[in-house]
Parts: sequence; C-alpha cells; structure tokens
Amino acid sequence: MAKPRRLKLGAILHGVGGGTSMWRHPDAKPDASVNFDVYKRWVQKAEEGRMDLIFIADGLYINEKSIPHFLNRFEPITLLSALAGVSQHIGLVGTLSTSYSEPFTVARQFASLDVISGGRAGWNVVTSPLEGSALNYGKKEHPDHDKRYRIASEFLDVARGLWDSWEDDAFVRNKETGVFFDPQKMHALNHNGEFFSVKGPLNIARSKQGQPVIFQAGASEVGKNYASKYADAVFTGHETIEEAARFYQDVKSRAASFGRNPSEVLIFPGISPIIGRTPEEAEQKYQEVASLVTIENALDYLGRFFEHHDFSQYPLDDPFPELGDLGKNSFQSGTDKIKKDAQEKGLTLRQVALQAATPRSSFIGTPEQVADQVQAWFEAEAADGFMIAAAVPHGLEEFVDQVVPILQERGIYRKEYESDTLRGNLGLAKPENRYTLHKKTVSAGL
Amino acid sequence: MAKPRRLKLGAILHGVGGGTSMWRHPDAKPDASVNFDVYKRWVQKAEEGRMDLIFIADGLYINEKSIPHFLNRFEPITLLSALAGVSQHIGLVGTLSTSYSEPFTVARQFASLDVISGGRAGWNVVTSPLEGSALNYGKKEHPDHDKRYRIASEFLDVARGLWDSWEDDAFVRNKETGVFFDPQKMHALNHNGEFFSVKGPLNIARSKQGQPVIFQAGASEVGKNYASKYADAVFTGHETIEEAARFYQDVKSRAASFGRNPSEVLIFPGISPIIGRTPEEAEQKYQEVASLVTIENALDYLGRFFEHHDFSQYPLDDPFPELGDLGKNSFQSGTDKIKKDAQEKGLTLRQVALQAATPRSSFIGTPEQVADQVQAWFEAEAADGFMIAAAVPHGLEEFVDQVVPILQERGIYRKEYESDTLRGNLGLAKPENRYTLHKKTVSAGL
Ligand SMILES: Cc1cc2nc3c(=O)[nH]c(=O)nc-3n(C[C@H](O)[C@H](O)[C@H](O)COP(=O)(O)O)c2cc1C
Ligand SMILES: Cc1cc2nc3c(=O)[nH]c(=O)nc-3n(C[C@H](O)[C@H](O)[C@H](O)COP(=O)(O)O)c2cc1C
Repeated sequence: MAKPRRLKLGAILHGVGGGTSMWRHPDAKPDASVNFDVYKRWVQKAEEGRMDLIFIADGLYINEKSIPHFLNRFEPITLLSALAGVSQHIGLVGTLSTSYSEPFTVARQFASLDVISGGRAGWNVVTSPLEGSALNYGKKEHPDHDKRYRIASEFLDVARGLWDSWEDDAFVRNKETGVFFDPQKMHALNHNGEFFSVKGPLNIARSKQGQPVIFQAGASEVGKNYASKYADAVFTGHETIEEAARFYQDVKSRAASFGRNPSEVLIFPGISPIIGRTPEEAEQKYQEVASLVTIENALDYLGRFFEHHDFSQYPLDDPFPELGDLGKNSFQSGTDKIKKDAQEKGLTLRQVALQAATPRSSFIGTPEQVADQVQAWFEAEAADGFMIAAAVPHGLEEFVDQVVPILQERGIYRKEYESDTLRGNLGLAKPENRYTLHKKTVSAGL
Repeated sequence: MAKPRRLKLGAILHGVGGGTSMWRHPDAKPDASVNFDVYKRWVQKAEEGRMDLIFIADGLYINEKSIPHFLNRFEPITLLSALAGVSQHIGLVGTLSTSYSEPFTVARQFASLDVISGGRAGWNVVTSPLEGSALNYGKKEHPDHDKRYRIASEFLDVARGLWDSWEDDAFVRNKETGVFFDPQKMHALNHNGEFFSVKGPLNIARSKQGQPVIFQAGASEVGKNYASKYADAVFTGHETIEEAARFYQDVKSRAASFGRNPSEVLIFPGISPIIGRTPEEAEQKYQEVASLVTIENALDYLGRFFEHHDFSQYPLDDPFPELGDLGKNSFQSGTDKIKKDAQEKGLTLRQVALQAATPRSSFIGTPEQVADQVQAWFEAEAADGFMIAAAVPHGLEEFVDQVVPILQERGIYRKEYESDTLRGNLGLAKPENRYTLHKKTVSAGL
C-alpha cells in the first residue's frame, strides 16, 4: 500500500524581502538581511510551526540596480551553519551554484553542515541565471543555459560520489587494536569527466540521513528534466492551481520516465500568503505593501530578469517592447513567460513591471481562507508542500500562529516532527551507500 | 606612550588530535572530529577562560595513511559558523587555502561569518602544502611553493578589496525617501591581475571589526615575508624559547621593513601543555600518550610532510635517509628543519619519526610551572600569545581551569573581555575603509 501523502512546509527566509520595497513598511526591520538575530527568531518560529525546512536563496552578482536584499545579505553556507547551532529539528536548505564553484568544496561544505546539524542539510542546486556572475569569477563568459545544466549534471554526479566516500560502518575506532577505520570501506572516486576531475575520497563521512537532500528549481525544458532526474524536491512558482497541477504532473511523469518513483520527487510551489482578520483587512495589507513600490523600482526589478536590461528607455504606457532573445540565457523559463503573457494579454510596460514587482498571490485572506487554498492545492495534486515567503513583515509569524494550527486540526499537517533528519520528515528514504549496495548485490549473487 | 603588551591566548580545536593516536586514550572521545557537541563544549570552555580565539586547521587531501583527524572532520567555514551561533565573545579563526578556491567566494564566506558573529572572524591564509590537493581540484599540478605564495598575495589583495566594497555608512535605509543605500558609497573593485579578475562589489558589507583578522603560518623565507607583510597574527612552532625569540624578532623586523608597526603583527607559537598535580604526574601523562603511538603510525605521520613518502622502505635504525629535494614543495620550512636536525644530531629514522609523532613540549609540569613558562616566553618577547593544542584528552579544560587563573592572578591575562570583536580583544585597530580614507585624505587637501 502506498504511504498516504502528507503536506510539507518550508519557509523562505530572505531578510528585507524578495521584492523591492518591503523594507519601507513601518513594521519592517530594514537591516533584516544582515541581522542574525532576526534569522534566528525566524528559524525558531518555523520550528515552532513544525515546518520541514527553511530555505536561503542566493546570487553571485549585484550592481546598483539590484534589489535591497541582494546588495547586502548573508552567504547561505555560513548562515545555515550558524542556524544549525540554534535549532534542533528543522531542515536547513540553501542555494549554491554549480557554475562558479568546485565540487570538492561544495560537497564538503554541505556534508559538514549535514553532520553538524545531525542530518538536516539540503542543497538547492542552481546554475546561476545572472551573466554578470562570470565577472566575479574571472571567466570570459557566462556558460550558456544548456551548457550550465550539463555542468550541473556532472557536478552533482561528483558530489554524490564524494558523499559516498565512506561506508556507514567504515570508522571502527577500536582503542584496543588501534584500528581507526577499515580501508576496505574508504573509496576514492577517481572521476575524470568533461568538466571536472576529482580523485577523492572526501574528508568527511556521511550524516545520519546519508546525503544532503537535493532541491532544484528548473522550469525550462532542460531545467525540468534536470529536476526530474536528480532532485528530491522541486521548487516552483505558479499563479493558479491549474497551472501548478500541470507542472506537478509534468515533473512527476518525467521522474517516472527516468525510472524513479514519482513520490520520491516532492513539488513545492512558493507562495506569499497575506493574512487578515477579514478578507478586507488582508486585501488592505496587500495594497499597503504594493503602494510602497515605485515604478522606477518595478522597472529595475524587471530588468534584472533580462540580464539587467534598462527598461527606463521605453514609454511606460506603450505595449511591452520587443526584446528578441534577451533573457533566454538567464532566467529562461521566467522571461519566456513574461514575454508570452505580455503579448497574449496586450499588456503595457507599466503593467508588466508592476505585475512582476507586486505579484498578487491567490493566498490572500483570512487564516481559514488561506488554509482552504493550501488544502485545495495539496489535494488537487498541484503541490506536495509549499515554500512560504513573507510578503509583509511578520508574514511568517502570522502563518505559523494562524494558519498552521488550522492545518494541524484538519489532520493534514504534523503536530510533532516524525524524525530528526530532513529526509525523515520529508518521508524520503536514506540513500544507501553505493559501495555497500554494490557489495550486497554481489554477495546476493545478483 | 606605547600600550603595554598583553598576553593573548587561542585554542586549537582538532577533534581527536593533531597526532596519530590520542583517540586511543581511555578518556578520549574517538568520534570527536565529527561531534559538534564536543566542539560546542570546547568553545564554551575557551570562552569561560576568556581566550581570544579558537582555531580550526584544514587540509584538502587525504589517503589511507592520513592521521585519524584528517580522514573525517568538519570543514572550517561550516564549523566556525555553527560555533558563532553558540558563543558570544570568542574569535573564530579557520584555515582556508588560496591555492584551490575563488576570492569572491572566500571573501564572501569570511565576511558573512564576520557579520553573523558580530565581528569575530579570522582567516588563516594557507597555500596548501599537500601536492595531492591538485587531484581533488582538477588541476594538472600543484603550483610550486613560491608560486603558491604569489597567488596568495594577489588573492588577499582581492579579498581585502572586496571587503571594502561598501563604506560603513553606505546603507541609509530611509523608509520615508525610499533610499536604501548611497551609490557613491558602493565600490566595484575591477581587479584584473595575473591570477584573478574580479569585478565586485561584494554582496555583503563590512562587520563591526571592519575586516576579518588575517592569520598566517609561513615559516620559509618567502612564507615569513608573506606573514610579515599581510598578517595581523602569525602562527608558529618552536621547541625552545631562544628559537622562538629569534623568530619573533625576525618577523617583527620584517614587518617594520614593510612599513608596518611591529606591534600590529602578533606572534603566536603553538604549544601542547600537559598538566599534572606534580611534575611526575605530568611526565607520566606524556608517557601515556606517547606509548599509544606505534612506529608504523610514526612513519606514516612523518611521510605526510614529505609528500606522503613511504618511509617503511628504510631500515629503522639506520641514519635518517638522504631525501634530496623531497618535501621542498610542500611543508618547506618543516622538512628543511627535520633534515637539518637529523644530520646535525646523527639521528636514525626511528628517532626522527618518533620525535615527529610524539614531540616533547617544554610546557609539561604543574599548573604553576606551565604558567611560569608562558610568562617567561611572553616577557622574553618570544611570543605575544600562544595557541593551545590539547596533547591529552581534556587538555584544554585543564589549561582553562588550572593555568588561566594563575595568569589572571599574576595580572598578565584578562579577567573579562575588553571588546566584542576579535580585533578589539587582540588590541588591533579597525582598518578604515580604503575609499572612506581616500575621501578624507583628498578633502584634507593631502
Ligand atoms: C522557489 C524558487 C527559488 C529559487 N531560488 C533561486 C536562487 O536562490 N538562486 C538562483 O540563482 N536562482 C533561483 N531560482 C531560479 C532557478 O534557479 C531557475 O533559474 C529558474 O527557476 C528558471 O529555470 P530555468 O533555468 O530552468 O529556466 C529559484 C526559483 C524558484 C522557483
Ligand atoms: C600553528 C600552525 C597552524 C597551521 N595550520 C595549517 C592548516 O590549517 N592547514 C595547512 O595546510 N597548513 C597549516 N600550517 C602550515 C603552514 O600553512 C605552512 O605550510 C607551514 O608553516 C610551512 O611554512 P612554509 O609554507 O612557509 O614553508 C600551520 C602551521 C602552524 C605553525
């Protein structure tokens, strides 16, 4: 019998916010992106809400048009590690790019975070959409979109190989005999590939959950294939339940076509709930935040998706400009969608920019209304869980205090953690060490 | 008037130990290198002893002959960050290699640790002695010793430049006007050098202490020049007070020749005190640990300094073998010294190996005797401070409980932290942002 599906919840923690202007809200802490106490309180709140994980996004290039949070924020590995020390159960997931890093270092840092936290680490594998990243890493050019995914594939193969360097019972530590480890259970990887060559072994053994959990957010064709093949969990963003359900089916069936059990790939749309005592109060909270966004902010925000394109050169109330291939090599799936929407709906530049900078979530309302939406998406198989991003100051606190208890009462969300590890709470199996597995297969004569 | 010199103390935390066999001791926790609770207790103990800092060493290559601690240990950035969350005052210093990493990432991770910890980060800049490191990073060959230091120089220039990306008052965060930052106080680096090209700006601003503290441990000629030119603090290792005092004078005068104030370069010999109620008890504790080392362990331990050379091929009781240039490209100063000593004193291989693996510290004795030695070295200007490495289980605890109070009573060690930052406690000035400084110089008409 299949296990019953259980709702999952994550919290996106992004300081002063993923948009341009939340920091201007009267209740906002405008230094939140570099205030460790703020992050510490959020993690502890999320843990109080028995959420599965917190998530730290990342990027590798800024300029004077970047949004406030991106200009001055914590680096994910350091932040997650610091948060490991002040939390007990919650998963710690962060973004790291495969286009500008070394597999030995990345595998090692995530493995170390995984052991420090007792099996709670997760890695959101991204390929870096921003072309400018190349300039911070001494590279002549940003690899093109599909090549970035080829690099990401080999990178993850190497990381997973390194994570299996030591079988789980390799460290004997016998004080009498003086045998510290069993050399038969230490494995060099000896990888020699197109992009990387890495000998190994890694100098840290596996954690309680075996390997860090792999997250991915690919939304282009090649991105969806990557996610379906490699990821334990997929982040995504959708405006409607129908669109989300289509994506859900798409990724699950791609996963099946790679020979995987579709229930081993969890789909997490990101949502930005806004909660009020009445529907009107919630709407008013949305309007208050939206009103803080100037049209200049909105144009800059939009520009970033198109390789920092300067949209202030176009008339605001003319139809959205023709951009050719611009954006294809950065946020491909996102920029395709913006162009398509603008054309189909005949939107002006002003409309497109404001829509991008002040998106209207379908999760605005009373706690019951938001819980209803969450439940509906979950039951319609449009989501296995959600990534909650605060759209107003205290958005996370309100979700935990007001929505989570409703979900718990309805029996679709946990009241206590089932496990100490992220895999355990997500209902994902601990991956067996490849060498141990091989030995078992051989000794069973298979 | 010059400020009075004040003794500094750091704790080297290295799990099951920097040698081959301490893990076999009845009181040792044999999984200490991957046990976060152990590290947490050590940091809190060191903080109880008002120590300036804890230090995490590192390496990038292992094989089956590596010592236990190196095989399976935490990665420094993650470990220090996790420890930041569970400590308040103590400095958090870790090793990171400039030969196998990217300045943008390294500058960012240390800056982030520095902000998370409220200005307590320190970076021990190393060039990676082990040739095998190249194999884990897809490199054809390990850069030679002097080239590694040239890379390290440019690397540190870039990191320091990135750390100054934002002037201290760049972030205005004015909710009324909507001005988040002052673009005049954001600075791209635009570095284009021999080894690196990095645009910047860094996406995190400076911490309370301005920039992370730079540690270095160069002991070769080129290494000592590097340390004297760049480092705020220098780690070193010496057997006698005379030798240490010579090194001290050497580095201080080199620093002066680079136009620096010698008091801004602190010298920290590493020592491994062993404390007993009586001198005999201390000696017995040393013998107990030394007896755990087998000759095979000792040969492997020695081999690592010589590019993992296999010493088991030589007769144990013949004179130490002729090795030519072996070792010159890894631990140059260390291997030079071993060869010189062996020749001058006519030592056998067995003697050299055992001496390397079970060094006899001059800090063995009662708490008073150890405190006397510490004071003598400090007053003779053989040390500004010491890095304490436990040579027996609970060595750190014994030092804090038994030696520190004596030093405090004698008035040569602090009873309370003077500052919240590592620079503050070390008595080092906060470096002014280079751009702010430039503006001041210009506006003063200088
Ligand atoms: C919830 C979510 C979180 C994301 N986090 C990051 C991130 O932290 N850093 C990043 O560079 N991209 C991030 N992305 C963007 C993706 O990495 C990816 O570039 C984008 O989804 C477009 O997919 P594609 O590259 O397959 O076109 C995120 C996307 C989503 C939906
Ligand atoms: C206290 C101390 C700590 C050190 N820590 C490290 C370390 O963590 N990682 C490393 O690769 N080397 C470490 N070293 C070695 C130095 O980086 C350096 O290779 C050595 O001192 C020889 O100097 P040289 O390279 O100038 O010959 C340390 C040395 C000392 C004295």
